Amino acid sequence: MKNHVDPGAADIPFGPADAPWQSSFSDLSLITEIPDVTAPSSEPRQTYDAVTETPYGRFQLPAGGLTADQYTAAENLFRSWLEQRCRISAGFQINADLDYQQRLSPYLGLTLNNAGDPYQTGAYTHNSKILERAVLDYFASLWNVKWPHRRDDPDSYWGYSLTMGASEGNLYGLWNAREYLSGRLMLLSPQGSAEPAPATGPNGAGGPGSNGYHPVLFFSQDTHYSLTKATRLLGIDTFQDVGRRWFPDENPLAPGTPWPAEVPSVGGADGDGMIDIDRLAVLVQFFASRGFPIVVSLNYGSSFKGAYDDVEAASRKVHEICANHGLDERPVHRGHGRSGTFDLRTGYWVHVDGALGAGYVSYLEMARRAGLVEATPPIFDFRLPTVHSITMSGHKWLGAPWPCGIFMTRTRFQMIPPRESEYIGSSDTTLAGSRNGFSPLLMWDHLARHSYDEQTRWAAECDRMAAYAHSSLRALEKELDLDLWVARSPFSLTIRFRRPAAWLVQKYSLSYETTYADGRRRTYAHLYTMRHVTRDLIDELVRDLRLPDAFVAGDFVAQA
Amino acid sequence: MKNHVDPGAADIPFGPADAPWQSSFSDLSLITEIPDVTAPSSEPRQTYDAVTETPYGRFQLPAGGLTADQYTAAENLFRSWLEQRCRISAGFQINADLDYQQRLSPYLGLTLNNAGDPYQTGAYTHNSKILERAVLDYFASLWNVKWPHRRDDPDSYWGYSLTMGASEGNLYGLWNAREYLSGRLMLLSPQGSAEPAPATGPNGAGGPGSNGYHPVLFFSQDTHYSLTKATRLLGIDTFQDVGRRWFPDENPLAPGTPWPAEVPSVGGADGDGMIDIDRLAVLVQFFASRGFPIVVSLNYGSSFKGAYDDVEAASRKVHEICANHGLDERPVHRGHGRSGTFDLRTGYWVHVDGALGAGYVSYLEMARRAGLVEATPPIFDFRLPTVHSITMSGHKWLGAPWPCGIFMTRTRFQMIPPRESEYIGSSDTTLAGSRNGFSPLLMWDHLARHSYDEQTRWAAECDRMAAYAHSSLRALEKELDLDLWVARSPFSLTIRFRRPAAWLVQKYSLSYETTYADGRRRTYAHLYTMRHVTRDLIDELVRDLRLPDAFVAGDFVAQA
Repeated sequence: MKNHVDPGAADIPFGPADAPWQSSFSDLSLITEIPDVTAPSSEPRQTYDAVTETPYGRFQLPAGGLTADQYTAAENLFRSWLEQRCRISAGFQINADLDYQQRLSPYLGLTLNNAGDPYQTGAYTHNSKILERAVLDYFASLWNVKWPHRRDDPDSYWGYSLTMGASEGNLYGLWNAREYLSGRLMLLSPQGSAEPAPATGPNGAGGPGSNGYHPVLFFSQDTHYSLTKATRLLGIDTFQDVGRRWFPDENPLAPGTPWPAEVPSVGGADGDGMIDIDRLAVLVQFFASRGFPIVVSLNYGSSFKGAYDDVEAASRKVHEICANHGLDERPVHRGHGRSGTFDLRTGYWVHVDGALGAGYVSYLEMARRAGLVEATPPIFDFRLPTVHSITMSGHKWLGAPWPCGIFMTRTRFQMIPPRESEYIGSSDTTLAGSRNGFSPLLMWDHLARHSYDEQTRWAAECDRMAAYAHSSLRALEKELDLDLWVARSPFSLTIRFRRPAAWLVQKYSLSYETTYADGRRRTYAHLYTMRHVTRDLIDELVRDLRLPDAFVAGDFVAQA
Repeated sequence: MKNHVDPGAADIPFGPADAPWQSSFSDLSLITEIPDVTAPSSEPRQTYDAVTETPYGRFQLPAGGLTADQYTAAENLFRSWLEQRCRISAGFQINADLDYQQRLSPYLGLTLNNAGDPYQTGAYTHNSKILERAVLDYFASLWNVKWPHRRDDPDSYWGYSLTMGASEGNLYGLWNAREYLSGRLMLLSPQGSAEPAPATGPNGAGGPGSNGYHPVLFFSQDTHYSLTKATRLLGIDTFQDVGRRWFPDENPLAPGTPWPAEVPSVGGADGDGMIDIDRLAVLVQFFASRGFPIVVSLNYGSSFKGAYDDVEAASRKVHEICANHGLDERPVHRGHGRSGTFDLRTGYWVHVDGALGAGYVSYLEMARRAGLVEATPPIFDFRLPTVHSITMSGHKWLGAPWPCGIFMTRTRFQMIPPRESEYIGSSDTTLAGSRNGFSPLLMWDHLARHSYDEQTRWAAECDRMAAYAHSSLRALEKELDLDLWVARSPFSLTIRFRRPAAWLVQKYSLSYETTYADGRRRTYAHLYTMRHVTRDLIDELVRDLRLPDAFVAGDFVAQA
């Protein structure tokens, strides 16, 4: 086979030396000709997004690698840029106050992989499962579920440390829900038959007659975009999918109008971001009365508004409606309706996306009891018998240099692994094959070094800081005599406001979102008062927002 | 709500102090009573797998955290145990020769998150996308696909840095294949209609009449267990699923016998682990002739035997068969068969799981040209027009403290993201929401510091080391006069042999696998000659295997 080098393109300037791409091969001694690799077909530096402070050419990787000087220059440039970014980052729900470096840097020279089930040590011995178990036990206790995990105890928890962030936990939770509600074998199912019920239901494939094993998914308009992705990946139908397909003119929220994609939030796009439980109830009633099992994913700290769905009230309502239609507890038979072998399951699944909230609201509750704060959001954890699974991000409240997190459920709901893996000597019960084993070490380190007392103080402090940011922005609004749409959802650690000019968005890493309500378009930015966000940083932002070019006509205000 | 504390259980000894669980609350000043958390219901130390060197009690996390002394003792214990594990690890395909610590430890104090598409910088500014692009360009060049990535160029590559290992790449590749072959919109599809073709195909739901948009998956019996999991998660049918459902008595490999779950490997369970292309062809022919689009996942370095499927021959064969049935290039119409708007797609997808092999065989090829090795496996990369996607692990050949890797495809095959995310200011084209941004930094660091020359020398050296381990074990076999079933698949970096006693499996982290062939059961262990595995380590293992208790009757030999 010929290689694809286009002789013209091989002259494109490349790498820190800014020399023709093909000249990098002349530094090599072993590879004396250009090997079978492809030359660039056009100038990558002009093709990719430019980041002014970190020009791409400095980081390109020639065949000979970088010289020591080039490496040092590139790494220093990247690091100092990143340090600056982290110091003044205010727009995302991540704690940038990290101090792992001194203690944990030796682990960058070791390898950790927690492949397989956390509770089975396995043949892959260099893992941190012992720390993972300690972290999981910690959260099981904090989230009020029976622990330690016991495979033979359906009431005990089961969980694992995520390799991605909460998006993995959401994906895993919905997958588990799909398997459970469509009648697949669970880990603790009676083993009378290895044949699962067909996913399409016992009454034949397709059509509205086979509803009993056809889960229908509900989540609110304030839900993270990763839920839509998980839904697509898993092939789970949302209520809109099923509504459009079989009940096109029967949208019970507004008969005759199209089905919405998501459950409305209270107050719509301009509201505080909590799921509208009354409307959720109407929708769930529509599908439960037709025999469909119900999956509800709730937000406990939505990403943009930081809103807390009332998990307690919403899940109680879902339970009540389902109970009215025989979907509270139902026998699920093995195989194609053969009697005799069955287990009892709920006909619904409530998943809690607690990416941020599940990490700290338990401490905020302790702060309330200690008199440090006055009120807390409604509870979300396993004290609610109606909650099936919870996920939390490790990089949000705790803080971590990369995304990580926890997924937790009750052992009775655990699905059977697709295949036991002798190779790693442990069950393949998690989403990933290989799992990041450094992440449990980070979480363990954090929890070992910070007591309930400290966490409680931090929770109260972040709450106060949010109130401070809120009042500062309100004051600015008055001072500027400009409606900045400043708002804080109840208990939220984020304050949203009119999106300022691009340089401010960039400077503070402010994320933004556009809402459409009453034919009006608004682009909001927000800041999060995570632990590293100080009063000084808020003051600096407010000072910047006071500058004449902070809200530029023609930039964003014009769109208001 | 009452808390769940069972007063008896609250006395269970807990943590490094070995004090009753509830006593840990007395160290706190702010939390003056036991908050609403759950006490252990039984003794966790007796519930979980014990690891003798690292007793669980030392790592448990009490409400007050660990004291400085307790922390130091626990962390030291864990680290020295792990250092020992890594030094003599020989059973997994991971390179444990890591030197990131000195240069990259400052990044443990910073946060990196590459949420969203690698080529769109986005509002989440603390990312390492600039390094990720350099790494992706590097592999695009090495794997011979057109680069840089251009969204408007269907022939250019697209890819991203994985947050999990190759299991994420396999999942993503199969997901992409499912969307492509079932007629969903692609990123570069003509945008005549936003309505995707239904996944069940244009000829109505269910039944063998609607085959054209019903992908059927093939992979060999030597395939990693994560493929089975991805299949289940995605709801893709394997040829066994479709065969059982619609053609129960027509297994073309052996009419009248049940459909196998996987494509046989050459020589079956006792063979070298390469997919049997003749049998693959028979199976593909069966389904392609009935109009089903074909997905084939091939192994380039299978996990247990390290076998290299002949990607070139297998994918050519698949292409030829598909071409005979109009599945080489076919018009895929938007919506429900409305004419006018369509694009041309292959009716098959070839995915390459190159977890290990894609990381170094390109260098082994360079070694062959430089005269350092005599032969190399058949090519696997984008020089083959029939290859649709490739995945590689970063922690295997390169070496990394945690799992990571690369997924790569051609831009023409890129699926449309489920939802554009304004929040992060970039398209949601990847599997994870939040993505590990430290992993691209690791890969960039490694590639910046090690030239093609070095990689080539290493590839040749590891190949020689595998030959050395192979001949050493063969010699041992003669010396002991015991059949150790020693075998090395062509070009493989792993040598498999009769599983020794448990203490040896443990000492060297040897993984193992049981095969069943001709009614005979064999449990194999294997060692991998990754870069950190020296001649001394192999000699030490062989010395240990010579000991009288190395192969204990009643332990494993008895099962032979």
